[in-house]
Amino acid sequence: MANSAHIEGTPNPNVSIDCVVFGFDNEKLKVLLIEQKNKGSINAQFALPGDLVLEDEDLHQSATRILKELTDLEGIYLKQFKTFGDPNRVRDVKDQEWLRTFREDPEARVITVAYYSLVKMEDYIPQAASLAGKVIWQNVDEVPQLAFDHNQIVNEALERLREEFEYKNVGYELLPKKFTLSMLQKLHEIILGIELDKRNFRKKIKKSEVLIPLEEKQSGVDHKPAQLFRYKSSSR
Amino acid sequence: MANSAHIEGTPNPNVSIDCVVFGFDNEKLKVLLIEQKNKGSINAQFALPGDLVLEDEDLHQSATRILKELTDLEGIYLKQFKTFGDPNRVRDVKDQEWLRTFREDPEARVITVAYYSLVKMEDYIPQAASLAGKVIWQNVDEVPQLAFDHNQIVNEALERLREEFEYKNVGYELLPKKFTLSMLQKLHEIILGIELDKRNFRKKIKKSEVLIPLEEKQSGVDHKPAQLFRYKSSSR
Repeated sequence: MANSAHIEGTPNPNVSIDCVVFGFDNEKLKVLLIEQKNKGSINAQFALPGDLVLEDEDLHQSATRILKELTDLEGIYLKQFKTFGDPNRVRDVKDQEWLRTFREDPEARVITVAYYSLVKMEDYIPQAASLAGKVIWQNVDEVPQLAFDHNQIVNEALERLREEFEYKNVGYELLPKKFTLSMLQKLHEIILGIELDKRNFRKKIKKSEVLIPLEEKQSGVDHKPAQLFRYKSSSR
Repeated sequence: MANSAHIEGTPNPNVSIDCVVFGFDNEKLKVLLIEQKNKGSINAQFALPGDLVLEDEDLHQSATRILKELTDLEGIYLKQFKTFGDPNRVRDVKDQEWLRTFREDPEARVITVAYYSLVKMEDYIPQAASLAGKVIWQNVDEVPQLAFDHNQIVNEALERLREEFEYKNVGYELLPKKFTLSMLQKLHEIILGIELDKRNFRKKIKKSEVLIPLEEKQSGVDHKPAQLFRYKSSSR
């Protein structure tokens, strides 16, 4: 059976990648959204950065390429967390016009492999690379209706982030390289969705021995400058 | 573009499911393997229970169906853990003959969504359902060369099981409904690959409050019968 989908460098019509990129501005947890490419009369929707996988690339390679192409982000922590395959996930009316305009095979079922990623906001200013429209940081508690099942994907990424944060200290990547204990407490509160007692929190963090105190304090703040710390595992 | 792959009930040539089913016989951790269907001269290989996803089923539904069709297992804990998408994962010479005999589109790239599952061995005697050849329990440390990248999938499932066992007490499903502390210790040692001190282990388990002691002791053993326990979360 001759099938163009087998040719290297062409997209596989049935498999895509979507990336949930989280950021933290010391107040709110954010997620990176792109405006879908727009031609003619299409109502622009926001979506996760994502696209079809090419025939000759593996999934991680594909996620890296797509994120670079759409947002200019590169060299960041990317973790595959779940594959979404509801047979109707690309069949919603809201998505039909975009699919018919941009996909060679708009009827094809698309199964998407989702990755999540953590970015230091100090290191990245959102910018659309050539293939995307606008790129924005959106508060995770104010995400609008997104294309396809992307709202569900964001929610499940958030659940996974909570789990990995609790069990494996994944999440420190969201803080600046040097941070205060207040910033760390805020990050815990935001990700876990709870308020923490300052004294108990500091006791627990001290006991866990994951931080290194620096010979340095905050600068440029209008209160008593606080001690700065960095995360022990410098590999992250 | 007319494409038979869009018709409901037909297999999607690009997406499959593979299931890593673990069992525990109180001595060794086991994994369930099936002998690939055999026609004519094909050298039979062992493989994980797996098959292509049908166009109109979602991934979890597909995993449930495939496991039932190939092994007669049903109603068990099934957890999606990773999707494998190396472009060459079905291109090894050892797999070509089987693919050419059994797949309508043997050249198609296949991305596989892998699930793992935990089974009480007391509840299941391996049996091939109509669609498979032999079904066997194999010690995880004695798995032969399997079809495709299934050895890698088994290894990654094992890593995930270790993680979930450590962080979330997933793994108790492998024990009989009523078990002794020695059986529980053995399970810990086998999954984590370490030896544990009996006294410390019992102290730790007692402190974790996950077990309920039963008014019952072992029977039919040739040593002093030990106290039986069950796991607190009866939902599993």
